[in-house]
Amino acid sequence: MTMSLDSLARPDEGNIRQDGIPTDAPPSLDPRSPVASFGLDEPLAMDAGVDLAPFRIAYQTAGTLNADRSNAVLICHALTGDQHFAHTHPVTGKRGWWETLVGPGKPIDTDRYFVICSNVIGSCMGSTGPASTDPATGKPYGLDFPLVTIRDMVRGQAMLLDRLGIRDLFLCVGGSMGGMQVLQWAALYPDRVFAAMPIATGARHSAQNIAFHEVGRQAIMADPAWAEGRYLEAGTRPAKGLGVARMGAHITYLSEPALHRKFGRRFQGGSAPTFSFNADFQIESYLRHQGLSFVERFDANAYLYLTRAMDYFDLAADHGGVLANAFRNTRTRFCVMSFTSDWLFPTADSRAIVHALNAASASVAFVEVESDKGHDAFLLDEPVMFNAAKGFIDAAARARGL
Amino acid sequence: MTMSLDSLARPDEGNIRQDGIPTDAPPSLDPRSPVASFGLDEPLAMDAGVDLAPFRIAYQTAGTLNADRSNAVLICHALTGDQHFAHTHPVTGKRGWWETLVGPGKPIDTDRYFVICSNVIGSCMGSTGPASTDPATGKPYGLDFPLVTIRDMVRGQAMLLDRLGIRDLFLCVGGSMGGMQVLQWAALYPDRVFAAMPIATGARHSAQNIAFHEVGRQAIMADPAWAEGRYLEAGTRPAKGLGVARMGAHITYLSEPALHRKFGRRFQGGSAPTFSFNADFQIESYLRHQGLSFVERFDANAYLYLTRAMDYFDLAADHGGVLANAFRNTRTRFCVMSFTSDWLFPTADSRAIVHALNAASASVAFVEVESDKGHDAFLLDEPVMFNAAKGFIDAAARARGL
Repeated sequence: MTMSLDSLARPDEGNIRQDGIPTDAPPSLDPRSPVASFGLDEPLAMDAGVDLAPFRIAYQTAGTLNADRSNAVLICHALTGDQHFAHTHPVTGKRGWWETLVGPGKPIDTDRYFVICSNVIGSCMGSTGPASTDPATGKPYGLDFPLVTIRDMVRGQAMLLDRLGIRDLFLCVGGSMGGMQVLQWAALYPDRVFAAMPIATGARHSAQNIAFHEVGRQAIMADPAWAEGRYLEAGTRPAKGLGVARMGAHITYLSEPALHRKFGRRFQGGSAPTFSFNADFQIESYLRHQGLSFVERFDANAYLYLTRAMDYFDLAADHGGVLANAFRNTRTRFCVMSFTSDWLFPTADSRAIVHALNAASASVAFVEVESDKGHDAFLLDEPVMFNAAKGFIDAAARARGL
Repeated sequence: MTMSLDSLARPDEGNIRQDGIPTDAPPSLDPRSPVASFGLDEPLAMDAGVDLAPFRIAYQTAGTLNADRSNAVLICHALTGDQHFAHTHPVTGKRGWWETLVGPGKPIDTDRYFVICSNVIGSCMGSTGPASTDPATGKPYGLDFPLVTIRDMVRGQAMLLDRLGIRDLFLCVGGSMGGMQVLQWAALYPDRVFAAMPIATGARHSAQNIAFHEVGRQAIMADPAWAEGRYLEAGTRPAKGLGVARMGAHITYLSEPALHRKFGRRFQGGSAPTFSFNADFQIESYLRHQGLSFVERFDANAYLYLTRAMDYFDLAADHGGVLANAFRNTRTRFCVMSFTSDWLFPTADSRAIVHALNAASASVAFVEVESDKGHDAFLLDEPVMFNAAKGFIDAAARARGL
């Protein structure tokens, strides 16, 4: 399955015009995303000290770039997300993961903006990652792939934008790991980001979040089918380990009240326990389904790499221990958003970002949305979030003369 | 290893006098606990509809039973606890798990009370459980062992008390799964419990808690060494799966502030990431240690059974959906205790118990202890808990004329 995922997006330079704009936007059911390929002369300078080359970045777009090239929006996806933000997913057949927020007439209005979302470096939906072929060996990288950081992801995105002929972004937006990238964009390329909207995120990963990620990684590595990361060559798949990792992580994306509301202690097809280890409770059945469906679309090693990237993220540590230093003299306008029931990136994490931005004299709005849906609220139907996002983006558009 | 654990406490009737009092209290380093054995004529009537026989219960005691037999305290242990509450643990060599609270001059004063703690049915420290030999086959029960409920545990404890010649308890006390047993004791045998102290517990397991347990079970069952539960015969041990289960569960026993205080984002032996999947962060190293040390002392199938028992616990459902009905006309005096940072059994769970007890006209004190130590606070040095427990127990002793 991972092989077939990997084959979905081969280097495909024929799709890219000299100015970088894809000539043939794929129909929404086409599994092949446009891919920007970077050769040996254009390496990605990674924090691990490695110059990665060649490499490729798969992406999707919606809307039209205006003549000024001033209406570009970069959407940064979360840990297990991908570039299919507004298109039917080629593997799952599900709708784009952010069609709630992005589309014609939506807060991120594809009638007005040119929206780009690229699969991050290290992932498995067409961009180069541990499942890709290592040119030095002709075999999949596996754990020989260099560790990836959030900054590496952002550097790769910047190279993609260069390729697409887009100097700067009207808006950079994303939730969770996507929000980390937004913060990193604003810190690394302050002149290239007009407005930034980090949602349900933090400027560093907490000890508890590292702990949950480590459990997931150990679950994958405990699976003999993982084969020390060489499962593609071994012809195996660590589906059980990856499924367990996903089940555990999925709990952290929800909230106790949401789980109580959705599932409570309701039994599957009955009102009494079966006195067995079957999925007696609806919540058990739901979680097992989450695990099973995830392994159909995600590569286990990519999961290791991307969780690690989140764990390593600590924007203050990169700036002398003072988060405000990451944003000194920024002219980017920020809207920071959190959700009351998010315990993975609680409001306190957003508040720390806001404090730092204020200390850096930045323009910043702070929206804490009342919701019982937990961390995943940023992906769901949250009218308060939509309204706040629309207000912020519309005002930014006016300020930019769009 | 499981076999050796199992061999620690063989049926050992020779240790029990006719009145059930052990004749030779084992020295604290003796791995062999006294065991009460019940024959074919004394089955345990289990909620699964099975009469379990023969079966045995391993236990430990401290202090002396008075002439009136009125000073007995039953301590109920938590999920992965055991009877070694005040004695050095025969496997780990660690001090008794509740020596903070129990001992000479402590709130549960072994100079005044006769304290009993038995290994619950379904566990693996000498009481009958899935690692025990199934008399029908001569092989370990494995998953042929009937599912266990909290009520089954309590019924077994009542049979042990009968054997020991103790009609009623001065105090029944326990935390977490132990607290569930305390509530079940008060509901099932109201005339046998003078005072009850359920700590850091709930009258039912929440959907989120069921979810975390299910992830742990799936981690165990995903381990090929689990061998469909027949690992003892296969000569394997699902150590990796059980370790992952423990790592995940352990996070839920702590709290985000405690993890931040203890570990933060500190690196192991350095100030920078190694760009690898080694245990870079101290929290990772700590968690891995928790997983490794747990598998040395616990049986994987027992973990499946006991987590399931907690999931099934719903005292209101057993009483027509009204929790207060579980305590109608009770004369037991209660002290319910919770910890502010406990997110596994948050204060709201304790408050629901208190509401029900008030509705049932019971005598109830409610103590919410300010602590950042999370669920495990009940096992730790918490002076406010000790003071409250001492006050409640001393008053109960006066009321009972002790």
